[in-house]
Amino acid sequence: MRVAILMGSKSDLPVVEKAAQLLKEFGVEYKMRILSAHRTLDATLEFVRGAKEEGYGIIIAAAGKAAHLPGVVAAATDLPVIGIPMQTSMMGGMDSVLSILQMPAGIPVATVGVNAAENAALLALRILALSNEALATSYKVYVAQMEKKVLMDDSGLETENE
Amino acid sequence: MRVAILMGSKSDLPVVEKAAQLLKEFGVEYKMRILSAHRTLDATLEFVRGAKEEGYGIIIAAAGKAAHLPGVVAAATDLPVIGIPMQTSMMGGMDSVLSILQMPAGIPVATVGVNAAENAALLALRILALSNEALATSYKVYVAQMEKKVLMDDSGLETENE
Amino acid sequence: MRVAILMGSKSDLPVVEKAAQLLKEFGVEYKMRILSAHRTLDATLEFVRGAKEEGYGIIIAAAGKAAHLPGVVAAATDLPVIGIPMQTSMMGGMDSVLSILQMPAGIPVATVGVNAAENAALLALRILALSNEALATSYKVYVAQMEKKVLMDDSGLETENE
Amino acid sequence: MRVAILMGSKSDLPVVEKAAQLLKEFGVEYKMRILSAHRTLDATLEFVRGAKEEGYGIIIAAAGKAAHLPGVVAAATDLPVIGIPMQTSMMGGMDSVLSILQMPAGIPVATVGVNAAENAALLALRILALSNEALATSYKVYVAQMEKKVLMDDSGLETENE
Amino acid sequence: MRVAILMGSKSDLPVVEKAAQLLKEFGVEYKMRILSAHRTLDATLEFVRGAKEEGYGIIIAAAGKAAHLPGVVAAATDLPVIGIPMQTSMMGGMDSVLSILQMPAGIPVATVGVNAAENAALLALRILALSNEALATSYKVYVAQMEKKVLMDDSGLETENE
Amino acid sequence: MRVAILMGSKSDLPVVEKAAQLLKEFGVEYKMRILSAHRTLDATLEFVRGAKEEGYGIIIAAAGKAAHLPGVVAAATDLPVIGIPMQTSMMGGMDSVLSILQMPAGIPVATVGVNAAENAALLALRILALSNEALATSYKVYVAQMEKKVLMDDSGLETENE
Amino acid sequence: MRVAILMGSKSDLPVVEKAAQLLKEFGVEYKMRILSAHRTLDATLEFVRGAKEEGYGIIIAAAGKAAHLPGVVAAATDLPVIGIPMQTSMMGGMDSVLSILQMPAGIPVATVGVNAAENAALLALRILALSNEALATSYKVYVAQMEKKVLMDDSGLETENE
Amino acid sequence: MRVAILMGSKSDLPVVEKAAQLLKEFGVEYKMRILSAHRTLDATLEFVRGAKEEGYGIIIAAAGKAAHLPGVVAAATDLPVIGIPMQTSMMGGMDSVLSILQMPAGIPVATVGVNAAENAALLALRILALSNEALATSYKVYVAQMEKKVLMDDSGLETENE
Repeated sequence: MRVAILMGSKSDLPVVEKAAQLLKEFGVEYKMRILSAHRTLDATLEFVRGAKEEGYGIIIAAAGKAAHLPGVVAAATDLPVIGIPMQTSMMGGMDSVLSILQMPAGIPVATVGVNAAENAALLALRILALSNEALATSYKVYVAQMEKKVLMDDSGLETENE
Repeated sequence: MRVAILMGSKSDLPVVEKAAQLLKEFGVEYKMRILSAHRTLDATLEFVRGAKEEGYGIIIAAAGKAAHLPGVVAAATDLPVIGIPMQTSMMGGMDSVLSILQMPAGIPVATVGVNAAENAALLALRILALSNEALATSYKVYVAQMEKKVLMDDSGLETENE
Repeated sequence: MRVAILMGSKSDLPVVEKAAQLLKEFGVEYKMRILSAHRTLDATLEFVRGAKEEGYGIIIAAAGKAAHLPGVVAAATDLPVIGIPMQTSMMGGMDSVLSILQMPAGIPVATVGVNAAENAALLALRILALSNEALATSYKVYVAQMEKKVLMDDSGLETENE
Repeated sequence: MRVAILMGSKSDLPVVEKAAQLLKEFGVEYKMRILSAHRTLDATLEFVRGAKEEGYGIIIAAAGKAAHLPGVVAAATDLPVIGIPMQTSMMGGMDSVLSILQMPAGIPVATVGVNAAENAALLALRILALSNEALATSYKVYVAQMEKKVLMDDSGLETENE
Repeated sequence: MRVAILMGSKSDLPVVEKAAQLLKEFGVEYKMRILSAHRTLDATLEFVRGAKEEGYGIIIAAAGKAAHLPGVVAAATDLPVIGIPMQTSMMGGMDSVLSILQMPAGIPVATVGVNAAENAALLALRILALSNEALATSYKVYVAQMEKKVLMDDSGLETENE
Repeated sequence: MRVAILMGSKSDLPVVEKAAQLLKEFGVEYKMRILSAHRTLDATLEFVRGAKEEGYGIIIAAAGKAAHLPGVVAAATDLPVIGIPMQTSMMGGMDSVLSILQMPAGIPVATVGVNAAENAALLALRILALSNEALATSYKVYVAQMEKKVLMDDSGLETENE
Repeated sequence: MRVAILMGSKSDLPVVEKAAQLLKEFGVEYKMRILSAHRTLDATLEFVRGAKEEGYGIIIAAAGKAAHLPGVVAAATDLPVIGIPMQTSMMGGMDSVLSILQMPAGIPVATVGVNAAENAALLALRILALSNEALATSYKVYVAQMEKKVLMDDSGLETENE
Repeated sequence: MRVAILMGSKSDLPVVEKAAQLLKEFGVEYKMRILSAHRTLDATLEFVRGAKEEGYGIIIAAAGKAAHLPGVVAAATDLPVIGIPMQTSMMGGMDSVLSILQMPAGIPVATVGVNAAENAALLALRILALSNEALATSYKVYVAQMEKKVLMDDSGLETENE
């Protein structure tokens, strides 16, 4: 299964491409698209409605401010949709968060933290790994490396005054 | 020109119908519809895209929480769109407000206050009155009555201790 | 019909003039004024009360912090009033937003997003286009160009790892 | 000097009259008025601009939501203006608070807490007492009684487990 | 694959059991557990670490206030974790939201809206349906019924004044 | 060592006495006092400055709104001070929280959650247990019972549909 | 009557001295002091309790974060106290605002906007002008100049496209 | 008794080491560790569960965003735990604050202000001083120096215009 990574504006790319980079490291096929829920609604709906047939299994959608993209995507597909709220100048991105998180009953969006493109990719990987043992194994390695890095940071501290 | 009054859920009706009531008092034709940006996206787009041809001049759209209806409507029509954020348990409706107010550049929504269905109707009337002198005159009367009511409240006070 | 663009302070100009620029592109007559609800209340009321007779059809009013200008303008005219809340250091402009958005029943202000001068102009254009077919046609072109720009951004991405 | 107590709506009366009651106990002349910055702007300006000549020394103004009354009053008089933000369903009255508190440089409003009508009156009394020794003495008595009440509450507790 | 539904406290049950009810309707096996990240940390870790071997594919975790359960669960398993922030008296549940949503990079939690137990279940169903065609078909039916319900609400309105 | 439990107002008693109740169960001596940072500042300072000599080891202080009591107490003693922010109508008690939590560098207050009188007592017990082995043992029992209660809630659920 | 200008920390000086500068322009005697409600509570109380006898009529107090200085000052004197909440990194100074604004009933603080030292001085001037006709006249001049400045800014705009 | 200073990430070090520096000045033994509630949960639990036996009396834990470290630590030990919420881009660190402050009943965390590492150390010192008279004396000296510094800042002001 492939992962589609959508963003509402080209300006979201520097944050969002971290999700692509991470999927690449895991050997997962993905496609990034700039698709706006407002400015290119038709193109968005066309892509999303055909996504499952095109082999996509998960759609990641990033958007900021009145961030409708993830919700509109989730309304147009039955695939799991992961929403990334972009940081803004409005209370650190609270507008993006609430526009994505507070979806009405019936249309779920899996929201991750503000600008949390890496966590969006990792969530996608956890889902894909449910039916892909090789990926599950790679994920374990990734987690172990992450743990190791913190342990090394920790042992690198000279922090006692004893 | 008629006014369309859309709401995302039947539960919004008790608040939203105040807008209809006010339009009725002014003799403005309107139609209320329950149309969801998520659950009935196709029906929403179909109605909105045909709205101008059906004689609608203004679309009022009320929605709560991750309130995408006004923005999606504004993306699907060039008519002026007035958004009513519904009160919720999340900071008094801040989720609805930010989801409607913070639209990205290019797609404007005229947002009124939380649950402010009357102001949505009055804003529509101000717009319609631009090309309807009779309505402009009625509006003046309405404003004068409103002023008179406050003045009467004021003169009804026995508030001095002198 | 002309559009009046008011701002509470000269410091708002760099943001607000984007609204003027956009109206200019559409060939709509406008006038920008610096008028304060507090420091030049008389001049503000004088201008606003005469605005309709002077040929204005819509008033855009930008203000920040305890942003009273849009509301006071809306109290002094029956024309549609569009409020632009300016960004501030207080929760990203939440003071401006709430001072403009939460108008009491009876006096509507069409609020757009924080610093959203372009959307204020686009909202004015949608209103003007109701009685101006040429403008309606220009607006369609504008929207199509906006859509095209996003589509080109999208096709310019090299984003697959397949 | 008399104190004017203005409120934007009759519905504010149950809270605001506590200020009147307190002034009455101190023998200070006051007048309560219902005057709206939006619905009766002319009457408001007329009253406020003549207030000093009518013998008023302080104006208390209570308002809720996009609470413009205190700021507009402060723009129309040089008397000290005390603003009372009314509690609302929007984050406990944060809309009222920010609309009153965040006045631009040049036009001060002395803001008290949400619904804090008593503190508005006490602030007025502190100001009046600057040039009224009898009032200063009464104020001391009031403060002493307030202290005594807390001390009695304290001594009335049976709270040790020793 | 089974779904585990964890909650931090028995008091969360009335909200959380809606997720269970929905999974039941779809014929998905689930187990509800009361497990606290703080009060029964060992039991929580024991269950979560063995969850994959026990046949669980997804873990839903609901918690309120300083809501650590979803994050701690996500740290102890590689399965996808869905977090439900419970409504509280602190800004409508903003404490729960931020404690679950703002996970640091490396440990993703799929957060749904406040009290959104139904959406948590629907998100789980979307994930399970990726490898279960029968479920995908049932989901389609569910979505169609949901759409139909709104359409019926809409057609039940008598809302024109024409 | 005894524990002093101060509150700014008698109205805080129903919440605060839970702290007293818990200390009682652990056999810790305490005294509850109603002392206001504003209305009885002298009595507050007198008590707090003599607290260490009177055998107090910890001071718990509860207050709401502009909650100065814990900070003023912490300025007047070197004993550890635990602050309880009381719930208010202002964003769920955010005024109380920020007034207590955000103390300037130099004067620490150990803040617990909104209305969290029990946690204030438990924090006091953890501190007292550092030099009181019997208390440390009782605390372990308490924690074990708390764990057991959750485990029993958990085993009391009939929650599987398998 | 003199004005005392207190601040909790030397770092507040660049903002607060604008109040002093303005009082100086009006020929009002003032004294600035660095006095902390926490770090120099005794010196604060000593100054404030003697302030009236020393000829002070108004006390301006600026503080940030858990900003207790204005409230503690107001508890120690019957003079009118004006509080200036300092901007912080916590939601733009919301901690300072709520710590000063939300004083409990009985102890009023006249709060001005975040960092609004000029408005604090202007509020003091309005109060002093109640019993000082020369000052009242100067204030009128100041307001007229302020108005003139905005009018000149306005006439300096070349803003029409007609 | 020694103090453990934990932080969730190496990036917290520049803030957190101020706590270490202060403890060092007071001659208190401490150890800094980088331990994550999510990435190195096992190492965290191992350290914390053995902390008392290793001679630690207090644990300071700093974390940001969905800041679970202090709460998880408090769940794994009976020692007093002091939480430092790190500043973030989300409303100035409100995510960190609420994730640490709003602990459920039963597991207390002594929360200090955003980035308030010094106050965390001072709180630890107040606790340690309860059973260490020499430390209590040093603390008195520290407080006196702090007071002196403010008094010197105050006397260094040339602030009168008299």
